[in-house]
Amino acid sequence: MSNTKFWLILGLVLGLASLGVGLYYFFWVKKQDDGNARSREVAGWIRDGARAYLKKLYMALIIVAGIMAVILAVVYSIEGQRGIPTAVCFLFGALCSAIAGYLGMEVAVLANVRSAVAASKDLNTAFNVAFKAGAVMGFAVVGVATIGMCAIYLISGDAQLVLAYSLGCSSLALLAKAGGGIYTKTADIAADLVGKVEVGIPEDDPRNPAVVADNVGDNVGDVAGMGADIFDSYVASAVAAMLLGAAFGTSTDPVIAANAPMYTVLPLILCALGIVASLVGVYFVRVGENGKPGKALNMGTYITCGVFAILMAIVILVIPTINNSLIWAILAGTAVGVVIGQTTEFFTSDEYKPVQITAEYSGSGAAITIISGMSYGLISIVPSIIGIVVAMMVAYFVVGGGDMGLYGIAISAVGMLATSGMIVSSDAYGPIVDNARGIAEMSGMDEEVIDRADVLDSAGNTAKAITKGFSIAAAALTVLGLFVAFVSEINTATVIAFSSEGNVVGFAFSDISLMDPIVLAGIFLGSMCPPLFSALTMLSVTENAFKMIEYIRGVFKKNPKILEGKATPDYSECVSLAADGALKSLVLPAIIAIVFPLIVGFVLGPKGLTGFLGGAIITGVLFALFMSNAGGLWDNSKKYVEAGNFGGKGSEAHKAAVIGDTVGDPFKDTAGPSLNTLITVMSLVASTFAPVIAVWHLF
Amino acid sequence: MSNTKFWLILGLVLGLASLGVGLYYFFWVKKQDDGNARSREVAGWIRDGARAYLKKLYMALIIVAGIMAVILAVVYSIEGQRGIPTAVCFLFGALCSAIAGYLGMEVAVLANVRSAVAASKDLNTAFNVAFKAGAVMGFAVVGVATIGMCAIYLISGDAQLVLAYSLGCSSLALLAKAGGGIYTKTADIAADLVGKVEVGIPEDDPRNPAVVADNVGDNVGDVAGMGADIFDSYVASAVAAMLLGAAFGTSTDPVIAANAPMYTVLPLILCALGIVASLVGVYFVRVGENGKPGKALNMGTYITCGVFAILMAIVILVIPTINNSLIWAILAGTAVGVVIGQTTEFFTSDEYKPVQITAEYSGSGAAITIISGMSYGLISIVPSIIGIVVAMMVAYFVVGGGDMGLYGIAISAVGMLATSGMIVSSDAYGPIVDNARGIAEMSGMDEEVIDRADVLDSAGNTAKAITKGFSIAAAALTVLGLFVAFVSEINTATVIAFSSEGNVVGFAFSDISLMDPIVLAGIFLGSMCPPLFSALTMLSVTENAFKMIEYIRGVFKKNPKILEGKATPDYSECVSLAADGALKSLVLPAIIAIVFPLIVGFVLGPKGLTGFLGGAIITGVLFALFMSNAGGLWDNSKKYVEAGNFGGKGSEAHKAAVIGDTVGDPFKDTAGPSLNTLITVMSLVASTFAPVIAVWHLF
Repeated sequence: MSNTKFWLILGLVLGLASLGVGLYYFFWVKKQDDGNARSREVAGWIRDGARAYLKKLYMALIIVAGIMAVILAVVYSIEGQRGIPTAVCFLFGALCSAIAGYLGMEVAVLANVRSAVAASKDLNTAFNVAFKAGAVMGFAVVGVATIGMCAIYLISGDAQLVLAYSLGCSSLALLAKAGGGIYTKTADIAADLVGKVEVGIPEDDPRNPAVVADNVGDNVGDVAGMGADIFDSYVASAVAAMLLGAAFGTSTDPVIAANAPMYTVLPLILCALGIVASLVGVYFVRVGENGKPGKALNMGTYITCGVFAILMAIVILVIPTINNSLIWAILAGTAVGVVIGQTTEFFTSDEYKPVQITAEYSGSGAAITIISGMSYGLISIVPSIIGIVVAMMVAYFVVGGGDMGLYGIAISAVGMLATSGMIVSSDAYGPIVDNARGIAEMSGMDEEVIDRADVLDSAGNTAKAITKGFSIAAAALTVLGLFVAFVSEINTATVIAFSSEGNVVGFAFSDISLMDPIVLAGIFLGSMCPPLFSALTMLSVTENAFKMIEYIRGVFKKNPKILEGKATPDYSECVSLAADGALKSLVLPAIIAIVFPLIVGFVLGPKGLTGFLGGAIITGVLFALFMSNAGGLWDNSKKYVEAGNFGGKGSEAHKAAVIGDTVGDPFKDTAGPSLNTLITVMSLVASTFAPVIAVWHLF
Repeated sequence: MSNTKFWLILGLVLGLASLGVGLYYFFWVKKQDDGNARSREVAGWIRDGARAYLKKLYMALIIVAGIMAVILAVVYSIEGQRGIPTAVCFLFGALCSAIAGYLGMEVAVLANVRSAVAASKDLNTAFNVAFKAGAVMGFAVVGVATIGMCAIYLISGDAQLVLAYSLGCSSLALLAKAGGGIYTKTADIAADLVGKVEVGIPEDDPRNPAVVADNVGDNVGDVAGMGADIFDSYVASAVAAMLLGAAFGTSTDPVIAANAPMYTVLPLILCALGIVASLVGVYFVRVGENGKPGKALNMGTYITCGVFAILMAIVILVIPTINNSLIWAILAGTAVGVVIGQTTEFFTSDEYKPVQITAEYSGSGAAITIISGMSYGLISIVPSIIGIVVAMMVAYFVVGGGDMGLYGIAISAVGMLATSGMIVSSDAYGPIVDNARGIAEMSGMDEEVIDRADVLDSAGNTAKAITKGFSIAAAALTVLGLFVAFVSEINTATVIAFSSEGNVVGFAFSDISLMDPIVLAGIFLGSMCPPLFSALTMLSVTENAFKMIEYIRGVFKKNPKILEGKATPDYSECVSLAADGALKSLVLPAIIAIVFPLIVGFVLGPKGLTGFLGGAIITGVLFALFMSNAGGLWDNSKKYVEAGNFGGKGSEAHKAAVIGDTVGDPFKDTAGPSLNTLITVMSLVASTFAPVIAVWHLF
């Protein structure tokens, strides 16, 4: 069991199995009934729009990835390192991430119409179609990621190359996530503001020229974007722990140094075990005749976690050379994730005070709705931050602190993300059902079908409470792991760079003192990046939505027959407006993620760059929590009013709550979710360029 | 010139002179004409309301200060330190701060009506009354503060006791600022939402039951709160530099160690020079027959800065033992302050894109107004953060780095705040003129008077651009100075505490590594405090405003004659609603400021507490910038629309812009401005309890 090769091959095999299961479900979904000519036509518009956007996005990304690959190859070669392999692994990572995202999106646009058609028969079949489609994405993501990491490490034995692979995944994920987020909210806000507010037609009404763009957005934003996002965290958490494991090789403790290879491979073992657990969990997601879909999804998550915990504990105990206390580090992360999920629920569910009070205050106007929602959003970060701190401290101290403690923090993130197969499956289910509802509405299906789609939709929201807590805690622990890994990288690089001068000056952890003005300067500069990034993506949404609103108003003016239902609008114009706007808006955010850390590194040096990453992590976590929770709170406040409270639909409170919901849209679906990816990319860029920055810097 | 006593006595004399000038202006203002019976009646309501609130506030603060003084006396005595003197200095600080705030508020409620009456004659006299009233506050603040610090240090020769004095000032300032901010925005929002939006009566209309509370709010929030705020920064910046100067006594460099007393006194010398410069500057603030008040205020600021720079340079060059490069550190801070002021102007003035675009987007609904304003607010932090980083780096490196460099950062803050006499004078002018306008409207003065008041008001806004940049940069450098001073304190305390065990283990700067999970935990916990504090104060505003709105609606319903103008509403009810609400809302924020740092200190120890302060400083600066700039931007976007753009008053764009403005109100006048004081208090609490925390802590 101490043979690392055995585990790597097992990882490869399980990765292939995961991908196989994903493909099997894919063809199963494809075989389902896609209804009559009308539903096929509507689904076709959405599919074509989504494909067109993804094509444009990937074309743009090929250029970005190409440039970065060349830079990596050149820089690494100059530094006497493995330039070409690094560039190849980087491109491989980007490709894998793209494949997983593409597969997920393809199945989503097949599944939405099929789920709608199934809903016209019964709830269970509809649930089954949507969930299996989500599982395609889930298994594709973890399968492709595990195959990629195991293959690279099996061939090269070099964790650095896995790092390059991870940077490839994350760079692509950032642009897919941010671009998709901008796209989906541009279309959503424009469709709502003109459709619902100005001319008073319902959601998903075929008279609205932005309706197809809105539904395309759900696929490119929520499905493809989310897939790329989890892909990126999954790989990044593993690579952080691998780098720290590899660094054990230079430890002064001979026992730890000797076992460095096993610690390096442990993250990949956990990924493999997570695949097994997810396969078991997904198998148990079944809804009986009158069963509750939400419960079924949660059951799947609990079973997966339970199976994973048992497998993980057995394997760690069985491998004789591994520190057994790591079991507790991993379990602590998971436990905290569940707690965070529950407390987050308190701030965003309409069963508790924050949502209810915000809804009540809406009666005094939209300004009060906004202030109240923002305030609760800010307060909501407190339990999560305390949870993250507790998880970090436990993971560190339970294994004895020191280098092993830092590894403990990184590995607890891996443990939490190992179950991603199941978690993605139940997350991707949500937007698919949402889309099914849109198709049902647009193709004129019965009211009953729409009601069933609503039931399925709310099941997705119930399931989200747990997966959300998980993903917050996991993301925070991942970036902490990456942060530690970066310092370890730059330390090694400094030792190597200056050892030839006979003067080995390592870059010790204690050099990064909070008292050092260069570190402080880095922290300040880093801390402004996540807010700046959020602002730029949100501004893109308002700018693009403003343009689209002007366009839609023009359409209604030019052809009044559209509003009478006697003419069909041209849906493609809004689709390309949203796509082109989103792609153009990605330039500045990409610069923040990739160029800023390099500038800071080359000017302020390793100490400044460490501070920079620290600052970015802190505000990144803070703003991600704030924005997604405030957005969720406003969304549910609106729904709470719509359910008949404080005047119900059409009241002053409702109007104010709708404004709150619209403000929350880019918070929770554009800016918030991209922030984790942003800090991941920044950390990976820093780690990747560590060998160069260690040598060349101004201060 | 190397005799520190000489300088301390000079400081005392100049402090007394400053206070004397303030009192002279006070009686000059009091002598001015306060108009007819009606204007006296209206002014009387406002004066009584303001006094009643201040009385309640100070009664509450006496209790808080008493408890804290007892705790300080006991804890310090147990630790074998000077318990009683510490408690006495703490109470003395709170008292001085209260006196300065009280004087400023008293003159403001005298000056508002007198300025309004003067405006019925001509612009210049009205300007003169308002500005001289502002100068009362300005000179009272710097006079009392300088007297207090010089007296304590002259008698005791102990910078620690000045620290206790500073904690007294800041604790009071925090509660005065936050309480005043909640009060003023509660009344403002409630008055606007019911008055302007629901029943459609203009601003400051006497039919509105909340109109007096609204005007009282300007005095207790903007005048008294602001005075306490500057008092606190002024003293805190000086004490940070004094503590670092005193710590030079243990330096290994014999030249620096020998000159420690002079470095300790230098901050007080700069305060004294700043008083001279402010006296000169205020003398030159004159408006000719057709002169521009805004220009006159700026001219006063420039002259003050110029005179101060010359005096400061001469004195530093003349005192032989002082590092001459400190001149550059101080000038760098000032230069950066001006640059920050200009760039901040870009984001909040209606002459530039951000305000104009936000106004334009308002045509598409309030949600877009909010998202756009928030985004620009977040972007606006970028130039300020870069400016702060540059100022810090220059101040550190220009004097040679190391301990002297850290002192350079602290002293550059002192240099910027030394001119507070002039800056407060021109800042306090604004709300006084604003109030004069309210009184003119309520007591039925001519339209011409109101127009003149508007001209005076806009002059205040012009002047604010420069003083704002100053105060941002100064506050950031002050908290950085306090941060460094805290580490120095806890280091000394640790050495002293453990030296008796024959085992001198200092707490080195390098111990606070960003890699240490305890430090990281502290940073995370600290970083959540400013957002939490903002949220709690903003929630208090919405909660209290909601209650007041319900009350006002009830009044209009019960007595319809009020709206017809045939009956006078009872103004006192809203006044006490706002006062009681604000005072009750202070409990939680006070706990965050005072109890949180102690909990973290006793649990996580010195390292965790250092991280905690670092985290709080970062997000504190960030949120303060974001909130005040976003608030200013929304305010001016509304004004831009009201000036006739994008449909002008009454248009859809206007309605949306009004919602933006209302959201911005608690941003810029409640939460934002209290944050600097919050992080100051946290830092001072940490420093004051450093001797105890060094010995007693869990981790």
